[in-house]
Amino acid sequence: MPSVAVILGSDSDLPALQPAFATLDELGIEFEAHICSAHRTPDEAAALAAGARGRGVGVIIAAAGKAAHLAGALAARTTLPVIGVPLTSSELDGLDALLSTVQMPPGVPVATVAINAGANAAVLAAQILAVADPVVADRLQQRKQAMRAGVLAKDEALQRSLDNRTDNN
Amino acid sequence: MPSVAVILGSDSDLPALQPAFATLDELGIEFEAHICSAHRTPDEAAALAAGARGRGVGVIIAAAGKAAHLAGALAARTTLPVIGVPLTSSELDGLDALLSTVQMPPGVPVATVAINAGANAAVLAAQILAVADPVVADRLQQRKQAMRAGVLAKDEALQRSLDNRTDNN
Amino acid sequence: MPSVAVILGSDSDLPALQPAFATLDELGIEFEAHICSAHRTPDEAAALAAGARGRGVGVIIAAAGKAAHLAGALAARTTLPVIGVPLTSSELDGLDALLSTVQMPPGVPVATVAINAGANAAVLAAQILAVADPVVADRLQQRKQAMRAGVLAKDEALQRSLDNRTDNN
Amino acid sequence: MPSVAVILGSDSDLPALQPAFATLDELGIEFEAHICSAHRTPDEAAALAAGARGRGVGVIIAAAGKAAHLAGALAARTTLPVIGVPLTSSELDGLDALLSTVQMPPGVPVATVAINAGANAAVLAAQILAVADPVVADRLQQRKQAMRAGVLAKDEALQRSLDNRTDNN
Amino acid sequence: MPSVAVILGSDSDLPALQPAFATLDELGIEFEAHICSAHRTPDEAAALAAGARGRGVGVIIAAAGKAAHLAGALAARTTLPVIGVPLTSSELDGLDALLSTVQMPPGVPVATVAINAGANAAVLAAQILAVADPVVADRLQQRKQAMRAGVLAKDEALQRSLDNRTDNN
Amino acid sequence: MPSVAVILGSDSDLPALQPAFATLDELGIEFEAHICSAHRTPDEAAALAAGARGRGVGVIIAAAGKAAHLAGALAARTTLPVIGVPLTSSELDGLDALLSTVQMPPGVPVATVAINAGANAAVLAAQILAVADPVVADRLQQRKQAMRAGVLAKDEALQRSLDNRTDNN
Amino acid sequence: MPSVAVILGSDSDLPALQPAFATLDELGIEFEAHICSAHRTPDEAAALAAGARGRGVGVIIAAAGKAAHLAGALAARTTLPVIGVPLTSSELDGLDALLSTVQMPPGVPVATVAINAGANAAVLAAQILAVADPVVADRLQQRKQAMRAGVLAKDEALQRSLDNRTDNN
Amino acid sequence: MPSVAVILGSDSDLPALQPAFATLDELGIEFEAHICSAHRTPDEAAALAAGARGRGVGVIIAAAGKAAHLAGALAARTTLPVIGVPLTSSELDGLDALLSTVQMPPGVPVATVAINAGANAAVLAAQILAVADPVVADRLQQRKQAMRAGVLAKDEALQRSLDNRTDNN
Repeated sequence: MPSVAVILGSDSDLPALQPAFATLDELGIEFEAHICSAHRTPDEAAALAAGARGRGVGVIIAAAGKAAHLAGALAARTTLPVIGVPLTSSELDGLDALLSTVQMPPGVPVATVAINAGANAAVLAAQILAVADPVVADRLQQRKQAMRAGVLAKDEALQRSLDNRTDNN
Repeated sequence: MPSVAVILGSDSDLPALQPAFATLDELGIEFEAHICSAHRTPDEAAALAAGARGRGVGVIIAAAGKAAHLAGALAARTTLPVIGVPLTSSELDGLDALLSTVQMPPGVPVATVAINAGANAAVLAAQILAVADPVVADRLQQRKQAMRAGVLAKDEALQRSLDNRTDNN
Repeated sequence: MPSVAVILGSDSDLPALQPAFATLDELGIEFEAHICSAHRTPDEAAALAAGARGRGVGVIIAAAGKAAHLAGALAARTTLPVIGVPLTSSELDGLDALLSTVQMPPGVPVATVAINAGANAAVLAAQILAVADPVVADRLQQRKQAMRAGVLAKDEALQRSLDNRTDNN
Repeated sequence: MPSVAVILGSDSDLPALQPAFATLDELGIEFEAHICSAHRTPDEAAALAAGARGRGVGVIIAAAGKAAHLAGALAARTTLPVIGVPLTSSELDGLDALLSTVQMPPGVPVATVAINAGANAAVLAAQILAVADPVVADRLQQRKQAMRAGVLAKDEALQRSLDNRTDNN
Repeated sequence: MPSVAVILGSDSDLPALQPAFATLDELGIEFEAHICSAHRTPDEAAALAAGARGRGVGVIIAAAGKAAHLAGALAARTTLPVIGVPLTSSELDGLDALLSTVQMPPGVPVATVAINAGANAAVLAAQILAVADPVVADRLQQRKQAMRAGVLAKDEALQRSLDNRTDNN
Repeated sequence: MPSVAVILGSDSDLPALQPAFATLDELGIEFEAHICSAHRTPDEAAALAAGARGRGVGVIIAAAGKAAHLAGALAARTTLPVIGVPLTSSELDGLDALLSTVQMPPGVPVATVAINAGANAAVLAAQILAVADPVVADRLQQRKQAMRAGVLAKDEALQRSLDNRTDNN
Repeated sequence: MPSVAVILGSDSDLPALQPAFATLDELGIEFEAHICSAHRTPDEAAALAAGARGRGVGVIIAAAGKAAHLAGALAARTTLPVIGVPLTSSELDGLDALLSTVQMPPGVPVATVAINAGANAAVLAAQILAVADPVVADRLQQRKQAMRAGVLAKDEALQRSLDNRTDNN
Repeated sequence: MPSVAVILGSDSDLPALQPAFATLDELGIEFEAHICSAHRTPDEAAALAAGARGRGVGVIIAAAGKAAHLAGALAARTTLPVIGVPLTSSELDGLDALLSTVQMPPGVPVATVAINAGANAAVLAAQILAVADPVVADRLQQRKQAMRAGVLAKDEALQRSLDNRTDNN
């Protein structure tokens, strides 16, 4: 199975990406992770993206804030799908990072997820690998059912607390 | 090879999606297309998504405007990757569709591309299929080189026009 | 008298909806409450909405944040009026939830109230029930008068403090 | 059956509200309509709202642009549900009208629909009357089914055009 | 000399308006202050505005947050100049209050100052009264000179700290 | 009676300000007008503002687009009230001009009116002069009544067209 | 004297940059121009920037729309000052291009000018070269005086038209 | 070598500009600093800018918040390059300051950097001086390499922590 490469624009972004690492682990997906900046180490970023398919990487996740060029800079150098995670490292609540990540020009898309949504980037990476991998597809399906069960359990707890309220009246 | 399912929220969105159809054709990727609304035909939307993997679909593209729930509604019913294309069918320049598409909750990502970017959605779908399909990967690589050649040709034309300007001075 | 169904996208939204519960209680309106997600439990959400009129529900209140599809997803399955409460659970101050809730397509309106305005959703639900129920209409009228009296009392307190200020000069 | 009162802030808003009139007619709902400005005829606006319930009005629809105070000004004088339609009569794409209409303070909600969504305001008004009126509820259900059938027909047309394309290849 | 009427939409806005009271005191301008809501006490708001010129009021200051209709509602009932102070009592950083206050329709202007700028509303009120009152004009001119002197003193302090820095090197 | 000075940042802004000239003429208020840029003729702008009170000017109206500094630059040099009119001469629908005009620092307010609202700036100027001038106050009151009569006439026309509709059914 | 390099992300941006070429010509500044995309020809973009100082370039101007990474990508490869011109090639009025250009991370600034402001980018480039070049500084000073004279001439024309108006009354 | 002039709109902005002072010191660039307001000390601001080139200043940095006119006011009085730093001193996250600083009219550009980006303003100033000063150019190149080395070191630390994680599994 191909692996996932997680690229962070700065080590201050590590806490925001821990949920991505945890989710990939949970789904049994191998990953590499790199701190690499589109603006401070552009050659290394180019090399990471250009060599990714050759290293067995199937999907790239790139997380950055402010004028978040990282995902786009990687997408310029590879035909692998690149997932962009806009981060709120700036004064504008992440709107700058969102627009800088998603509004890519023709021919070079970035698959953008919600602001700060590291875990969802990992789920999307798994969904992409699962297109050709029934084992991951199965794990995702189980995760979806567990998620559903979690909501149902919370609703049951709410029903009990509402019943108690009624009983006490 | 898995196919792509393109779902449009309204038939008025067909012109915006023609570039997606053309790009999928160009890359030799089979696709189905449906007009199906998250709000006017929710059962059909649910069925389209739930049965997609079984029909051999590998990636879903969903395009909608305004409170664009379509991509998210489909993503709720499948573990296939869902690409969302926010459309400018509203009075707010597509910002409403962008935020409605990209800001998905934990566990249910939508791979969002730029506003009105139907062609890029098709490229992203091809990139996803290419993870496990070297033939598509090769076509994408050739397309990337052709795109580069196109820019270089335009730059050459600019250099000639700048040279003429200088010669005439 | 028909009841009100309050649907929350997540149990983390319960504190934001407590003012809705309190206001419904105060106005003597029966309600049910459910945690139910448009994206994690879409079948349950569909069933809740589709069966609502049959259960004696007259109005649905749906509260959700980020790409807030819940109110729209419910409105797709019922002809009951659906009130949407956009919540600030995201990084964008609730603007994403507001646009995702209010910008609904033709034929499927959502009656949207202010960001985080759980109590006002309850008042609006009561106003809807009061169209055919003079008792609720009367309670709403008394509440409006009490609200007015509250402002007048605060103004009187201000006048006294201004008078004291003048006396002390 | 109670009627609907449609209040427009200016006669230049009449074209935007014609779909509301047509939808109310289609659903067999009586309505009155008035041009009345919160800022240029505030006494008349206050009187229209204060006397509405007495005139047999069940729901008020108020449409205005820019600093759209009309819906809120009416809601201040009645306990009837007031539906606000933000209009794009300003330079800011209707965002000013949307925020001015929806962000109402505690105790005085406005049921806000999408920017320029006159027809949806009429549907919402009908949904509110239908809470206590099975005939209107039935008409709304039929309209919802017709809407669904319309989408399905458009999808069938798309399938035929896709089939032709394939046949011609 | 005419006085100033300061109208607050809620007593929770009092702290934001204390700088206005202090500035009016400092400039020797009489003022009245009222808590009065456009939506909860609309008749009292209308009466306050309609009777203001007769009470000797020359300028009205109105402060409100969210869908801030107060300044506009007062302006609808008087030809006195009305100054609007948008407040950040909502989730949207005051942008809703700013647009609701400033985007008034033809014929009914509101003189809008910056978000939360209570003190500047008082200065503007004094400037308006000073058009016909040389004593207030003189006080404003002295205040402007004091403001300039304050900046110059801070610049001198900066120069000293920069000199020290150089001396220590 | 003091006069009004209308300052335009560019002669391309003249059409947007013609309604201001017409409104001042209609209200019998003398005015001067100048094209003067805060950035291209800063000394002239400073002199216009500094000498205004001495020339008998009572109120300044300043209209500019984009980074609209003109109103603020004038306000820095006078204690006269300065009314700012943000214009849509840029790519951002006037939001840049609105924020540049209204968000002034402590001590130097600008009385901001709606985007492109030249006529309302003239009304506000007249309201300011009317504080000490009963003749202008009276004209403003008559204008307000005419405005009200205009709305009532339009409503009557609407009632006739609604009656005809009913008669034809 | 160093030259200026003007880099355009697409040949469709040429019309927007013609004012930059004309302004550089007018100020007697040599320039090269290239069509070069951060995403479609990233290696060429990197080479253009890395070799610029060696080619005698003193300032780089980069113009791009949407997720405008071009200026930042060039700034990553050179220590020359890079001027960014955000263009409105997208659906969001250039706000996406503005934020993508200006919100650069620590260490890699981009000198951003107004949306679509090609001519101002040329003026800024000239100002930068003029720091060490008194001839260009002199030309800029003359241009500034001509600009001032232009505004004064337009104001004179306005004064004549106002005088005529008065004479005719 | 020319020096840099750093102008702050208020002494409360000093902490935001300390990184600019530190960066200029680090790069061996002389600077002067002034507290000077476009609105409270406009004559001093004009004089500072007009006399800057004569004092040996090569670049001006201006930092201000809210309706940030300072950079533009200085640019109106000099042909030196003026760098604008928008600050978040207002309620709108610095968007007001950004638009007020960057959206300058033709002929008077401001080189705008990111919101609160004092250090980047200093780097840009150094880049401008380095056009004609190989010593500063060399220091900037070394700083760029150090920045790159810093990112590489952080990536190495991440690789070690990832290796440890694997070893422990």
